[in-house]
Amino acid sequence: MQLHREAPDPLYVQLKDSLVADINSGRYHAHHRLPSERELSDQFQVSRMTVRQALLGLARDGVIYARVGKGTFVAEPKIDQQLRALTGFTQDVEARGGHSASRVLEAHVIAATPELAAALRLTPAAEVIELARLRLADDLPLAVETAYLPFALCPNLLTHDFATASLYRVLENDYGLTLVGAEQTIEAALAEPRELDLLELAAPAAVLRFRRLTFAGDGVPVEWVLSTYRGDRYKFRSTLQAGRLA
Amino acid sequence: MQLHREAPDPLYVQLKDSLVADINSGRYHAHHRLPSERELSDQFQVSRMTVRQALLGLARDGVIYARVGKGTFVAEPKIDQQLRALTGFTQDVEARGGHSASRVLEAHVIAATPELAAALRLTPAAEVIELARLRLADDLPLAVETAYLPFALCPNLLTHDFATASLYRVLENDYGLTLVGAEQTIEAALAEPRELDLLELAAPAAVLRFRRLTFAGDGVPVEWVLSTYRGDRYKFRSTLQAGRLA
Repeated sequence: MQLHREAPDPLYVQLKDSLVADINSGRYHAHHRLPSERELSDQFQVSRMTVRQALLGLARDGVIYARVGKGTFVAEPKIDQQLRALTGFTQDVEARGGHSASRVLEAHVIAATPELAAALRLTPAAEVIELARLRLADDLPLAVETAYLPFALCPNLLTHDFATASLYRVLENDYGLTLVGAEQTIEAALAEPRELDLLELAAPAAVLRFRRLTFAGDGVPVEWVLSTYRGDRYKFRSTLQAGRLA
Repeated sequence: MQLHREAPDPLYVQLKDSLVADINSGRYHAHHRLPSERELSDQFQVSRMTVRQALLGLARDGVIYARVGKGTFVAEPKIDQQLRALTGFTQDVEARGGHSASRVLEAHVIAATPELAAALRLTPAAEVIELARLRLADDLPLAVETAYLPFALCPNLLTHDFATASLYRVLENDYGLTLVGAEQTIEAALAEPRELDLLELAAPAAVLRFRRLTFAGDGVPVEWVLSTYRGDRYKFRSTLQAGRLA
């Protein structure tokens, strides 16, 4: 593919697009080494600076990754996940044929903060279970998830080992809590130092933040969850329907 | 509110939560100046370092902003937008009672790249209209949006001035193209240098990237859009329904 000096898009954007097309077409597979900066500069007849700018952009988008002294490699495609179904991390990973695991970061009973009490419709300072987990798929850390649940709804919850157990399965099997719906918000943020550490990211890194309130059949709030997903490994998908257009 | 040295959350997280609660309760309004580092450190009996860490985190989350030599101020609440309805930027801003405007960055006819031709179901190198705009609400730049439309569907589209016209209104009124649905993906990324510039952000900044394919009533793809929204100004909301849970 030729780049066009007179085209409206800058050369580095054209080069980025061309490399993305090569990856999407299957010419370069995941973990394939890309040609070196010098080779790309010769091949596309652009400066090393232009090549560097294109590669930096691709790394920022999570399309490629660099290994010091080894070159630049094609990343795995991002995990492509529907935003509509209320599913848990365990189910999401299993549905992709992966192996899910967790590292429990926090598991105890706390007094609800005013914000938590309001979200979960509890009396001020009511007892709440806090369960924070690092979520892994095939041994790669993908998300940090902190769930808060009313203690009164599931008093013995923390007798389970959530390094392996699925929270949603336990709620359903042990407490008859069938989750029927949730309201969630999604935001982009820069990862905090602790998140960088847990998710094995280098600063600065963009992450997706979810805040989710999940309901049981009778409309009772069952959990309030804050999740941070790696921006370089996830894209979320939604279907839109026409309202009035403007 | 007192911070608890023996609590599981680090002090800076507790301080962050406490300031967020004060903002949410209405104690501190948008553009209100927060107490200084020294005042917060006295008030909460924590080190200046802890205060600085909490304020940095709040700035990263878009909850506060700093003005050199003036202190730290409460940011406007993020724009809270549903992900389900297919609406355009103009309608979204007007629905919030704001004034929307655009700066046209690109407006011409190009030959479709292989990726574009595949998405819009066109023959290779078919003519495509490229319309890139900086989208503003009440004079603040909020998003960069690049739409690609099949030239054959709307050949005189670029005779309109999209600094003021709504693309969706023109498609409906001039071409009878009623948009009925879309598929979109949402990702978090670090803003590219050009996006930083257009959106008036300081590096590093997290943004939300949307890729959207919009359909007319007969299932014909009408536009392929790449949008970048400021992460510090937006949160998106979706409702989830139970599938099988895990």
